[in-house]
Amino acid sequence: MFEAKTYIDRRNLLRKSVKSGIIVLLGNNEAPRNYPNNGYHFRQDSTFLYYFGLNHSGLVGVLDVEADTDCIYGNDYTIDDIIWMGDQPAISELATSVGVKKSYPLSELSKTVLSAIRRGRKIHFLPPYRLHNTVQIAQLQGIHTARVHDYVSKELIKAVVAQREIKSAAEIAEIEKACDIGYKMHVAAMKMCRAGIYELEIAGAIEGIALQFGNGVSFHSIVTQNGQTLHNHYHGNKLTDGRLMLCDAGAETLMNYCSDFTRTMPVNGKFTDKQKDIYNIVLAANIKAQKEAKPGVTYQNVHLAVARVMAEGLQQLGLIKGNIDDAVANGVVGLFMPHGLGHQLGLDVHDMEDFGENYVGYDDITTRSAQFGLGSLRMGKVLREGHVVTSEPGCYFVPALIKKWEREKINSSFINFQKVENFLDFGGVRLEDDILITAAGCRKLGKHHVPITVEEVEETMM
Amino acid sequence: MFEAKTYIDRRNLLRKSVKSGIIVLLGNNEAPRNYPNNGYHFRQDSTFLYYFGLNHSGLVGVLDVEADTDCIYGNDYTIDDIIWMGDQPAISELATSVGVKKSYPLSELSKTVLSAIRRGRKIHFLPPYRLHNTVQIAQLQGIHTARVHDYVSKELIKAVVAQREIKSAAEIAEIEKACDIGYKMHVAAMKMCRAGIYELEIAGAIEGIALQFGNGVSFHSIVTQNGQTLHNHYHGNKLTDGRLMLCDAGAETLMNYCSDFTRTMPVNGKFTDKQKDIYNIVLAANIKAQKEAKPGVTYQNVHLAVARVMAEGLQQLGLIKGNIDDAVANGVVGLFMPHGLGHQLGLDVHDMEDFGENYVGYDDITTRSAQFGLGSLRMGKVLREGHVVTSEPGCYFVPALIKKWEREKINSSFINFQKVENFLDFGGVRLEDDILITAAGCRKLGKHHVPITVEEVEETMM
Repeated sequence: MFEAKTYIDRRNLLRKSVKSGIIVLLGNNEAPRNYPNNGYHFRQDSTFLYYFGLNHSGLVGVLDVEADTDCIYGNDYTIDDIIWMGDQPAISELATSVGVKKSYPLSELSKTVLSAIRRGRKIHFLPPYRLHNTVQIAQLQGIHTARVHDYVSKELIKAVVAQREIKSAAEIAEIEKACDIGYKMHVAAMKMCRAGIYELEIAGAIEGIALQFGNGVSFHSIVTQNGQTLHNHYHGNKLTDGRLMLCDAGAETLMNYCSDFTRTMPVNGKFTDKQKDIYNIVLAANIKAQKEAKPGVTYQNVHLAVARVMAEGLQQLGLIKGNIDDAVANGVVGLFMPHGLGHQLGLDVHDMEDFGENYVGYDDITTRSAQFGLGSLRMGKVLREGHVVTSEPGCYFVPALIKKWEREKINSSFINFQKVENFLDFGGVRLEDDILITAAGCRKLGKHHVPITVEEVEETMM
Repeated sequence: MFEAKTYIDRRNLLRKSVKSGIIVLLGNNEAPRNYPNNGYHFRQDSTFLYYFGLNHSGLVGVLDVEADTDCIYGNDYTIDDIIWMGDQPAISELATSVGVKKSYPLSELSKTVLSAIRRGRKIHFLPPYRLHNTVQIAQLQGIHTARVHDYVSKELIKAVVAQREIKSAAEIAEIEKACDIGYKMHVAAMKMCRAGIYELEIAGAIEGIALQFGNGVSFHSIVTQNGQTLHNHYHGNKLTDGRLMLCDAGAETLMNYCSDFTRTMPVNGKFTDKQKDIYNIVLAANIKAQKEAKPGVTYQNVHLAVARVMAEGLQQLGLIKGNIDDAVANGVVGLFMPHGLGHQLGLDVHDMEDFGENYVGYDDITTRSAQFGLGSLRMGKVLREGHVVTSEPGCYFVPALIKKWEREKINSSFINFQKVENFLDFGGVRLEDDILITAAGCRKLGKHHVPITVEEVEETMM
């Protein structure tokens, strides 16, 4: 936890950014796994953590804009609980530890909200993503659960995004801790990777590292020799000589700040020339992104600059033909990289994605493209100092997608499908780093450099 | 997955055990962690797994008792999904793989249920433990979510318990696989345990092992130098010379069968005489349980036999005084072991606890005691061949509980509180194995023997 002043300052700023009313921030509750008392590892809501810092289930924070006060609602443990659970802090002590002067039992919350509604005051809440919180909001507001999302406060979303997206030095230090755990995970994966081992063994081992040094993985790791399948959480394959293994994994610190790296490596420890050709295009794209990212530039334009580097590389290999500018403008690179260059990163690995991607990655100036590929870009807007984003170019050969484009003649004047078909069994390459936008440009986060060049990866795997 | 015949047979038997109506078995859905698309590791409902074996989210199985048919409801992936996720089996293929001939989109389910309700047929469902399923049942039945539990089918609960609690040879083989992962975890914990290491490092490492070789831990591990705190999931302490570390952890196989072991070890690798005194009482209790457990005996009586062994040991140390039979009958051992001897184990680490403990551990013949300690026993009823239970005696010195009993003069004629106070900083010891009730008695599960004697533990830690 940060010191109380950090949370007091954050709440003060939020109360000033919202015109009027009360702001209700719901913490998370235990989530049952296979029976009521066998819960998943508790994960607090990130916005609740940002403003209240308390990593306990069943809490709600309320900020009163006009009265300029904050309070915490939650239920104390009973003496019987303490026999089984050991000493537990009272809710009032938890509140005090983060500079909140008032606390009440949870049953008081509905009275507070009801009284505000009766006086015609605005109730601000964020989009719930757990059904428990959807139901809680519906009950507090006296509305049907199906209508909860209509009542979400856009004013609150915008105010929270404006605060959370600019990371303080202390937050950056936490993200760097997460990066250092990520470094350990990725080096371990490189050292374990060999023909005959199951993907699951590597995925489990790196998740163990994330749990040893922090709060576990920041998302379900992708560890696969089928990197061309983008949303691939299957870990059942035995690694095969000649394939590439793609490892996309990150950690959370005990304060829930995240990292997110991707590396791709040859299962047998040595890249073939064909693998190097594609790999080095992606590496050049990764370097290009870090050269272009700086305050004042949109990340959409950084994505396009990266797409151009990829198009040039693919043209040299004969997979793309025609005018490069036209190819990029027509979204040809989307066939090879159907996803965006990156997303914001912080207390969530896709930071604040629960609010809706467009509130976080776009604004009145930069709107989301409708083009296949570029349209998947989560973070498109102007970069500012203090933003933390991922830079994750990739190049994949997705058989179903290639066949679809060929069949539907999409961008067929730019693509040499005959050559592309030589790569149908290639798989995919992605190289992802976490970068901080600085006054001068950007810098990669993490004390340790995760091996990335062909030589570094091969050496680590030896 | 087992072969289709296994699931067909299980469903046939269930349809025969329930008099009439339709049986609706809800699978689980993805559970969001910190935003909608960042879910927890998917865990299928155990009863759904038992009857349908399909480890996919968003499925519902329906058994029609009179028509003697089964079907699966679920939604197929779209072609766009497949571009991102790779080839996915159709619902009809999933159904066929477990011998179910009919499958429908999920939207058809409400029609099926509504039509059965209209014809006055009974709708059987189990107690939901995830809010998503509570809401789904409420909507299907047209009732308020708060009333769902009133509509639960006790007939179905009893029929499912009767089937699931007798483990087949194939199930026992799976549980033994889980035990072998548990063996690896506990030996690793013994080897890592030393002063100066954080509990979290050990907890993370053993969870990593569970993820490398199976589906992860079967419950949130307890790894603590404060074993006297029974519900202790805090892993923040640095281990201290002189303390005992208690490690209660188990694994799930990829088919979701569970193991559950506890071992207790001296942080510095050598038990003191005082630690050995208590440890050997618990070890004797563990051995006694395995001597007594056999078909026809209630597990409540095995608990009481174990309590007697503990009372004798504690009397020899001067902590308990007076007549041993009276001490046991009065629940004196509850001060030192406030929990029960064990619970059933299978597809859940507390098998079928979602139905309610009394449906699983008690019946018309054996009812739950109201006495502190014995009343916490989860499995009390007559043991039968094919039951799998944990045997987990423990001895703890819980300061808050000791002070309460002393203050309230509970069982004061049997307890030498002055001597007990010498143990206030002792911590706790628990030794837990998983046992199968056989025709002749019982046997410990797992190919490998998890070190348990003082000598074995000390040697493993060397």
